[in-house]
Amino acid sequence: KISKRILVIGGDGIGPEVTRWGKRVLETVAEKYGHAFVFDEGLMGHAAIEATGNPLPDDTLEKAKRSDAILFGAIGHPKYDQDPHLKVRPEQGLLRIRKELGLYANLRPIKLFDELLAASSIKPEVLKGADILFFRELTGDVYFGEKKKADDGSWASDLMIYHAYEVERIARKAFEAARLRRKKLCSVDKANVLESSRLWRAVVQQVAADYPDVQCTHMFVDNAAMQLIRDPLQFDVILTANLFGDILTDEASQIAGSMGMLASASVGDGTGLYEPIHGSAPDIAGKGLANPLASILSAALMLQIGFQMQEEADAVLRAVEQVLKKGYRTVDIADKHTENSMIVGTDGMGQQVIQQLANS
Amino acid sequence: KISKRILVIGGDGIGPEVTRWGKRVLETVAEKYGHAFVFDEGLMGHAAIEATGNPLPDDTLEKAKRSDAILFGAIGHPKYDQDPHLKVRPEQGLLRIRKELGLYANLRPIKLFDELLAASSIKPEVLKGADILFFRELTGDVYFGEKKKADDGSWASDLMIYHAYEVERIARKAFEAARLRRKKLCSVDKANVLESSRLWRAVVQQVAADYPDVQCTHMFVDNAAMQLIRDPLQFDVILTANLFGDILTDEASQIAGSMGMLASASVGDGTGLYEPIHGSAPDIAGKGLANPLASILSAALMLQIGFQMQEEADAVLRAVEQVLKKGYRTVDIADKHTENSMIVGTDGMGQQVIQQLANS
Ligand SMILES: CC(C)[C@H](C(=O)O)[C@@H](O)C(=O)O
Ligand SMILES: CC(C)[C@H](C(=O)O)[C@@H](O)C(=O)O
Repeated sequence: KISKRILVIGGDGIGPEVTRWGKRVLETVAEKYGHAFVFDEGLMGHAAIEATGNPLPDDTLEKAKRSDAILFGAIGHPKYDQDPHLKVRPEQGLLRIRKELGLYANLRPIKLFDELLAASSIKPEVLKGADILFFRELTGDVYFGEKKKADDGSWASDLMIYHAYEVERIARKAFEAARLRRKKLCSVDKANVLESSRLWRAVVQQVAADYPDVQCTHMFVDNAAMQLIRDPLQFDVILTANLFGDILTDEASQIAGSMGMLASASVGDGTGLYEPIHGSAPDIAGKGLANPLASILSAALMLQIGFQMQEEADAVLRAVEQVLKKGYRTVDIADKHTENSMIVGTDGMGQQVIQQLANS
Repeated sequence: KISKRILVIGGDGIGPEVTRWGKRVLETVAEKYGHAFVFDEGLMGHAAIEATGNPLPDDTLEKAKRSDAILFGAIGHPKYDQDPHLKVRPEQGLLRIRKELGLYANLRPIKLFDELLAASSIKPEVLKGADILFFRELTGDVYFGEKKKADDGSWASDLMIYHAYEVERIARKAFEAARLRRKKLCSVDKANVLESSRLWRAVVQQVAADYPDVQCTHMFVDNAAMQLIRDPLQFDVILTANLFGDILTDEASQIAGSMGMLASASVGDGTGLYEPIHGSAPDIAGKGLANPLASILSAALMLQIGFQMQEEADAVLRAVEQVLKKGYRTVDIADKHTENSMIVGTDGMGQQVIQQLANS
């Protein structure tokens, strides 16, 4: 019987509605396998600004540090997107928790469930068998470099900066993972233009020397954005910087059929944070339409990576697979060409997975 | 009878082999329509470094300034990609000519020839009718901001910076273009994280006020990378920064079937530069396999945008269309499912277009 403290942060938009189901899955796993998962709740993002004025209240940060893992939903609100001049912004909460907890490695597995082959905008024959693991650096780059702007609004800047140690630690994690997979690592940068990318490439080349069994290649980010769609099967592990990783993993969601299917694990030296890669989707928030599978799969990543509970994680994956096989689909993964598909909402999908998992 | 001076810069890799056909097309147009196009040649990139030590020799820059338009091939060489420490690099030539000539607006039209519907990795029903015009800012951003690195190699940085006037002038060009199209403009940034993007968004919002007839929306770059593949039909004009434009347009090449089909026009206050968006493709250089259509379509853009020769530009487009209709394909756009398709090399494809154009 294993005990774990889990902090649940729903966040903004569809965050709370989907995270509810990630949590229910963890509860079901705890019951089924006799673990003791203790849950706490925290505020972050727009929700936290409304309640406290702070996108990451001290209370949330303290709870986060005391937890074994964090299940997070999504962040962002249209109010701030329409007004570029607002100083306090929801995203600051997420960026700060990543930095404070040292979550420098963001793992984003992109894998298509066979049942969803038809749901993608990409041709099935191009996709079939695609299985990519992204390592996105998460606490450096232009996200955290110094920000400046002229008082008169005539210019603004962000510093894109990397330290060698930041590149090295995530590169090692990525090479270790590649070793356990198909032993191919592609590092993505823009070394033909950027000084920080040339540092990135030089450090990755050095680390690669310690992993002669892993085939290491380098690709420019523009080319990578193209190759991901042209031929996703060529990739195994992709290692890249914070900004490039943000863009490429969202793009790669189309390989998995929908953004609503993609989970991520942010890990570093301590407590890990598990979250869908989708955003707060304000346009569908509160309508019960959002796909909870990304949150459920984030819970599975927590079990696997955070708690080393491989069997439990597999049980969740199998439950999701079964539910898809039975034909249940949220609108984002619905496909007019599949017969017998049943369109369900957030709760309908969540309940199906819980049932399947409980009875497995 | 119109006289024009055109500077031809083949550049590196497949650059010279494809540019040859862009030039041949211009010669054919001149003969057919009785114009006087005078051609000159210039060195740039790795080829120029080998010959002169300088990626953009003064001689080339002077010729460029004296020309009415520049037809350019591609830049880049694997030698530099493998060694991030080399100081003199081919790409510096291209970046400097863009800056020196004030080529701040890079137009990249993404349009699928119906004949190539089957050649893309994206489903035909998702693609059919896609027609996007990118405005990529080309002389600012992290490309030109200050670059620094530690002597001991412990860190390196690039400054991502935008001035309001830089955003405004390209935004105006993009809104003007949208007015003549479907009157929709989507500005892509990362304003939820970057100060320079918040400036970008604020300036675009201001300019938008002068174009009430154009529907202006804003999208985060990660979402845009996803939406381009999920549903390309939603876009008309896309306006974005230098780095984001580099990534998104390469990605969008999959909408047009292949990178080998995409042309671009870099314009500003003086002489314009016309080039394929593909790179130097060292792996196929010298093999006679490269698709010359991007260079040929770049020549068409020169006729249309640089010389206001709409009829001549249309004749080139029609010639390309006819050749595709007849079934001629270079390997990058070949499609096993199309019957009667004939695989040709660079010269085979070039000759077909010239013939078609001459006889039209
Ligand atoms: C919300 C935003 C700050 C965040 C990011 O850019 O990192 C998101 O897009 C993500 O990918 O987790
Ligand atoms: C070669 C390189 C410097 C260039 C760029 O990044 O601008 C190229 O990728 C392009 O898109 O024209």
